[in-house]
Amino acid sequence: MVESLSSWQKTVTRETILEFVEAVTAPGSPDFVPPEARIATFDNDGTLWCEKPTYIQLLFTIARLKELAAADPALRDQPAYRAAGEADLAFFAGLYPHDVQTLMQMVFDTHSGMSQGEFQAQAFHFLNAARHPRFNVPFKQLTYKPMVELLHYLKAHEFKVYIASAGGMSFVRPVSEEIYGIPREQVIGSNITFETRMTSNGPVLFRKPGLIEPLDDGPGKPVNIELHIGRKPILAAGNADGDIEMLWYSETSGPKSLQLVLNHDDAQREYAYTGPAAQRVFPLAHERGWIVISMKDDWRQVF
Amino acid sequence: MVESLSSWQKTVTRETILEFVEAVTAPGSPDFVPPEARIATFDNDGTLWCEKPTYIQLLFTIARLKELAAADPALRDQPAYRAAGEADLAFFAGLYPHDVQTLMQMVFDTHSGMSQGEFQAQAFHFLNAARHPRFNVPFKQLTYKPMVELLHYLKAHEFKVYIASAGGMSFVRPVSEEIYGIPREQVIGSNITFETRMTSNGPVLFRKPGLIEPLDDGPGKPVNIELHIGRKPILAAGNADGDIEMLWYSETSGPKSLQLVLNHDDAQREYAYTGPAAQRVFPLAHERGWIVISMKDDWRQVF
Repeated sequence: MVESLSSWQKTVTRETILEFVEAVTAPGSPDFVPPEARIATFDNDGTLWCEKPTYIQLLFTIARLKELAAADPALRDQPAYRAAGEADLAFFAGLYPHDVQTLMQMVFDTHSGMSQGEFQAQAFHFLNAARHPRFNVPFKQLTYKPMVELLHYLKAHEFKVYIASAGGMSFVRPVSEEIYGIPREQVIGSNITFETRMTSNGPVLFRKPGLIEPLDDGPGKPVNIELHIGRKPILAAGNADGDIEMLWYSETSGPKSLQLVLNHDDAQREYAYTGPAAQRVFPLAHERGWIVISMKDDWRQVF
Repeated sequence: MVESLSSWQKTVTRETILEFVEAVTAPGSPDFVPPEARIATFDNDGTLWCEKPTYIQLLFTIARLKELAAADPALRDQPAYRAAGEADLAFFAGLYPHDVQTLMQMVFDTHSGMSQGEFQAQAFHFLNAARHPRFNVPFKQLTYKPMVELLHYLKAHEFKVYIASAGGMSFVRPVSEEIYGIPREQVIGSNITFETRMTSNGPVLFRKPGLIEPLDDGPGKPVNIELHIGRKPILAAGNADGDIEMLWYSETSGPKSLQLVLNHDDAQREYAYTGPAAQRVFPLAHERGWIVISMKDDWRQVF
């Protein structure tokens, strides 16, 4: 028999996860949860795949800005296009929260103005072809092996596993089945607006500048979980302050629930960081009994 | 062996449905569609359950207005509350499209200002307890038996069946599993806005006045299908002009698809109507080869 979660170290973290799944799935268990209520929600960036040196979707955006400037040299005078041409990550890192307007314009320039099919083909191509600057593999290979194992383990125990990403829903869906075993309809994320246009080939969905509120971050995560699932997760996993509401929301699902917070403390195999996006989540995890996963100590393997 | 779709007459309509399902599911069929792409989307009002003498959700709204006026007599001076007290359906029928502001205010008064849990309990209670004025049964029993049979038949053939209702998603979800065998996460509809509020019991979802765009009607149906499913339906069913974009969109899913349009032509067993909400759909069905279901001729039984 293959051992479950074999790329996890045999620490209390792994033991806690195994015990939780046993408690909610074993027939006759006092904490038994029927399959239809076994909902799990996972953040994506920094929880399921690598988010350094910056978000994969931002690297995609930068690559698209370069392509657009190659096609239309007049664009190169704009700061964002110039920074993209010079691979100046610091420029982009400085945009939030000081220059959200430039950031949004970048997103609209690269994520709208095409059909939904065209956009997803671009995302698919990028995730397959472009390579991570340090690990030198296609981005779609930068999923965390222990987390992917956990997704499959939950699925094998009749959990319905969703991604709840602050990033773009349409960016992740083209690869979610392949890299996580999660069908595209179980990927929730942020979205720009869409419209149905009648064409000679019938109705086609076009992507428009504009954001669908709420963004799938912070208090927006429980909102979108309700819209897409209509049930509370009994297991939630994240790594940053934007996951706090989702983690806490899962506590309200019933007597037995599990919250996981990934701590990036492994500079050697991945990165060591908390940074401004993860200031509150670790003290809160300690206070509320959420399980902190140490990448360094709890994982035998990272990728 | 129990015969499939036994409450359908043995007409060409039933035959066409059976042949389509056979063609897309039989192994080795040239039109075979793998299970993950077997998406079907059904309108709800007038397609799966009765929408006369008016929408069930409008009757719920009127009942709620009466309750609110009973608790706060000052409200009775407002026209909508007065009309609710007098069961004046004509008043409500006249609001659209001439007085959308009053209509929206009614919706916000009765559908927001409470937690999501409280609202769904109210909807559940209404659908179980209130009775249809003509048929004198609880509203949740006013589903069309042949359509429910079809939902189960599709499910048995590994279709994933969704409701795509112009009505409220949260209004239908509390009963969708029971009356249709459709789990709540497969119900798509229109929504008012939500917010996550921190309370002493953790995060709670509250319903706020305001609408989430787009409404799930007309061109909004393909948009919400993309957001919730991310695939095109290979089978779509509706009964009104607000379903046209969804029906046509399903044609673009691939070489083989099926569109069903229910014609209410049975005054004796249900109602006979087309009315202003179904002006364009029948000529278009004729033009594009969508299957028109005659309630009178194609169904052995209605409820």
